[in-house]
Amino acid sequence: MALSPYQQLEQEFRRLHAFRGAASVLRWDAAVMMPRGSADLRGEQLAAIEMETHSLVTSPRVSRLLDRAEANAQGLEAWQIANLREMRRERDHAIATPQNLVSRLAKATSRAEIKWIEARQKSDFALFAPHLEEVVALIRDKAALLGKALNLSPYDALVDEFSPGLRVAEIDSVFTTVGRRLPGLIHEAIDLQAKRPLLEITGRFAPAKQRQLATELMKTLGFQFEHGRLDESEHPFTGGVPGDIRITTRFSSNDVLTGLMGVLHEAGHALYDNALPEAWRGQPVGRDAGMAVQESQSLLLEMLICRNRPFLRYLKPLLEKTFGVAGPEWEVENLYRLLTRVRRSLIRVDADEVTYPVHIVLRYELENELLSGELKVKDLPEAWNTRIEDRLGVRPANDAEGCLQDVHWAVGSFGYFPSYAIGAVIAGQLYERLRAERPELDQEIAAGQFSGLFDWLRENVHAVGASLSTPDLIMNATGKPLSAAAWLRYVEAKYLEE
Amino acid sequence: MALSPYQQLEQEFRRLHAFRGAASVLRWDAAVMMPRGSADLRGEQLAAIEMETHSLVTSPRVSRLLDRAEANAQGLEAWQIANLREMRRERDHAIATPQNLVSRLAKATSRAEIKWIEARQKSDFALFAPHLEEVVALIRDKAALLGKALNLSPYDALVDEFSPGLRVAEIDSVFTTVGRRLPGLIHEAIDLQAKRPLLEITGRFAPAKQRQLATELMKTLGFQFEHGRLDESEHPFTGGVPGDIRITTRFSSNDVLTGLMGVLHEAGHALYDNALPEAWRGQPVGRDAGMAVQESQSLLLEMLICRNRPFLRYLKPLLEKTFGVAGPEWEVENLYRLLTRVRRSLIRVDADEVTYPVHIVLRYELENELLSGELKVKDLPEAWNTRIEDRLGVRPANDAEGCLQDVHWAVGSFGYFPSYAIGAVIAGQLYERLRAERPELDQEIAAGQFSGLFDWLRENVHAVGASLSTPDLIMNATGKPLSAAAWLRYVEAKYLEE
Repeated sequence: MALSPYQQLEQEFRRLHAFRGAASVLRWDAAVMMPRGSADLRGEQLAAIEMETHSLVTSPRVSRLLDRAEANAQGLEAWQIANLREMRRERDHAIATPQNLVSRLAKATSRAEIKWIEARQKSDFALFAPHLEEVVALIRDKAALLGKALNLSPYDALVDEFSPGLRVAEIDSVFTTVGRRLPGLIHEAIDLQAKRPLLEITGRFAPAKQRQLATELMKTLGFQFEHGRLDESEHPFTGGVPGDIRITTRFSSNDVLTGLMGVLHEAGHALYDNALPEAWRGQPVGRDAGMAVQESQSLLLEMLICRNRPFLRYLKPLLEKTFGVAGPEWEVENLYRLLTRVRRSLIRVDADEVTYPVHIVLRYELENELLSGELKVKDLPEAWNTRIEDRLGVRPANDAEGCLQDVHWAVGSFGYFPSYAIGAVIAGQLYERLRAERPELDQEIAAGQFSGLFDWLRENVHAVGASLSTPDLIMNATGKPLSAAAWLRYVEAKYLEE
Repeated sequence: MALSPYQQLEQEFRRLHAFRGAASVLRWDAAVMMPRGSADLRGEQLAAIEMETHSLVTSPRVSRLLDRAEANAQGLEAWQIANLREMRRERDHAIATPQNLVSRLAKATSRAEIKWIEARQKSDFALFAPHLEEVVALIRDKAALLGKALNLSPYDALVDEFSPGLRVAEIDSVFTTVGRRLPGLIHEAIDLQAKRPLLEITGRFAPAKQRQLATELMKTLGFQFEHGRLDESEHPFTGGVPGDIRITTRFSSNDVLTGLMGVLHEAGHALYDNALPEAWRGQPVGRDAGMAVQESQSLLLEMLICRNRPFLRYLKPLLEKTFGVAGPEWEVENLYRLLTRVRRSLIRVDADEVTYPVHIVLRYELENELLSGELKVKDLPEAWNTRIEDRLGVRPANDAEGCLQDVHWAVGSFGYFPSYAIGAVIAGQLYERLRAERPELDQEIAAGQFSGLFDWLRENVHAVGASLSTPDLIMNATGKPLSAAAWLRYVEAKYLEE
């Protein structure tokens, strides 16, 4: 029997998924295993695969099949209709950017990234500025074309690539609330914390032992090592593909908590990826629900669950046993204080839970102004420094700890930053609902039982795949639209407790 | 300026090379890094890439470009003409086997391999026989089609895929000479060795230290770790792609010499791969000269150089230092006896240098007879056992140590076996010439100086890439056609010394 247009599309997208999975493992290899001298070779391999996937999604055949499948969708199941919608979305995104612009962007970002590395090392923004200007101009073109094709505002179109269905209206609403409340909250939290004693942890902790403890924790959380790995790399990340998920961290022998929290953060991503619906695997609808929801899963696990007292009651004896330590600095309350310490950090990736969104709101404002032309690239450092000082009360001494600290703009990732803070807000909203539905959660976590937590997440988040947009997923899981209220209640309770 | 047909072909084949490099790294990952449960996923990724490379090579566009480039070859340099010839060869090989047969073979060999694993475990040939029959029938069809397209006999066409230009006439001539001399030589060597005292090495040798020594030796040989890796896997192999070559071995804590010799064997392959001409990289002419020449490089290093006294004089103090050992069993002469011990082994992969070709000649005869129909699959075990007993004087107790020991036939690799023994013969021929041109070789090796050896190999073998066929490369390097004479002189001198 001949395959229906829809079935033929499933075949095409399964091939696409295979190519993407291959590319993802090759990127993991590049970060974790590849010899230093092989970067150019790997670049050619990835470019060949990316060219192939782009031409596959934008092929006339796929367009024809989409038209025919959409015209005959009546016999399809609900998930297949969602799958068709995701296929269309992907094709429309890909085809809106002409090959010529794609390749100009690839070249410009590749040059910009190299210059950004040098500029950051030398803390010399002037080196980077012309390259950033070029990237901004190209992204502006891309956003306009994407917006036109998708019937969205240019910035909405960029955001939609990372978090389907998330719009500026919602981001603005959340960021206004959060941006208004946080500076004061940070100030109060720091004052309160200053009154409480806190003991630093000193000593040496063998990376091999840290790794052993991390592995044990991952297993307890439900990570299946027959479908994934844990390795070390310069920057922690989650790579691979559902069914073969690989997380990395960095173990430092004088800082046992940071490496561990890094693993728990990435494990939040990995447990999401490997719990995506198996029946939909290889299809667009079987993917995650985008970067904001991804980040909600890593932050929920790291920040809301693990940097919290019940988890630390479970962790304390494991730390003592693994490293043969004991003493007042290893008491639950002291660990909690260390892991929830608020500081006016200038560096986003080192920021604590409440300072972090301040960094994101700043970048969100600035990237919008850069794209609209309201802010000139040459004025970026001053705008950055003034606004961060306004909100955190500290001013970067140089651009390396200011507007040169992140790679995102150099590589053309505009519209990505919001997902970090929206992810935190979603985590807060999910957590409030989860606690209401599962009052025994704290006792379970303290006892090292995580199945209740992950059953709830699987049902309400993981099993959804990409069948719902970001806003619909939140509504579906929590009964409420996206809002900062729950997250603010959570941080106020946590950071302003007397 | 528009690209010429030849230049367009270079572009297409560079893309092809990128896809193949990607696939090669993914296969390395599957053997060394991949979680156990991800095999199906990886299979889909590799199938997608292989389908793409096949359709690229056999595309009408490539055929058209080849016709046009061949018609206008007058302005091309010699290496470009060789490149064009290799492109044509590859296209003709790929297009001769219809997609339908390719996919039937892929399915049949995939089933056969699974059954072969089970059959070998249970030593039950009947489980495997129907699958081998299916594979033999399909390979027979493939060989006929290939032979017709390439104007070669069917078996020549199969061999040509692995060792370009190598023909049955040459293999027959070498194998007849070798097959006639070896049984007697093995007998004499064993008698001679029995008269000499030999001390076994016992004790435990930490794999981490074995690895450290192997790494040190690889560096001394010229292996560049910024373009390659050393890892461990169940079966040693050389993977990756020139510029990113990855070798594996297996370190056993109670057998320090086997793991080390495994590394040296694979290093022979790796040093060849990474010394292929950089200017031709990514092009068919920039590849190695096929499996027989590949094997000549690994065997030359492992057997002729390293399992020899000058190298062992260099190795002895390194072994003593690395493992803190000393005593009569670590003396050069005893190490030499251990590493050149001749035994009537039934298992090919454990066989010593002089027994090994006996195993190959047997497989060569049998696979020819299976393909011609002279030998029925059901009669294979008896034919195997009788002939190996005739030549080695030992008879397999079961098929696991007989005709079920190798995976090659299950996966459809007919025409591959000869390259192992032809590789040994080429190594012998190269070695004789090398020693004549470089009388100081032994002193250099004993002093741990390998640049003379590898300069000679680079000039005479590595730099050739695939610009010469196997027979032409041998003629070019040694001034003589392929012949078993030099190798037989070498083994007679080595194994029959009084």
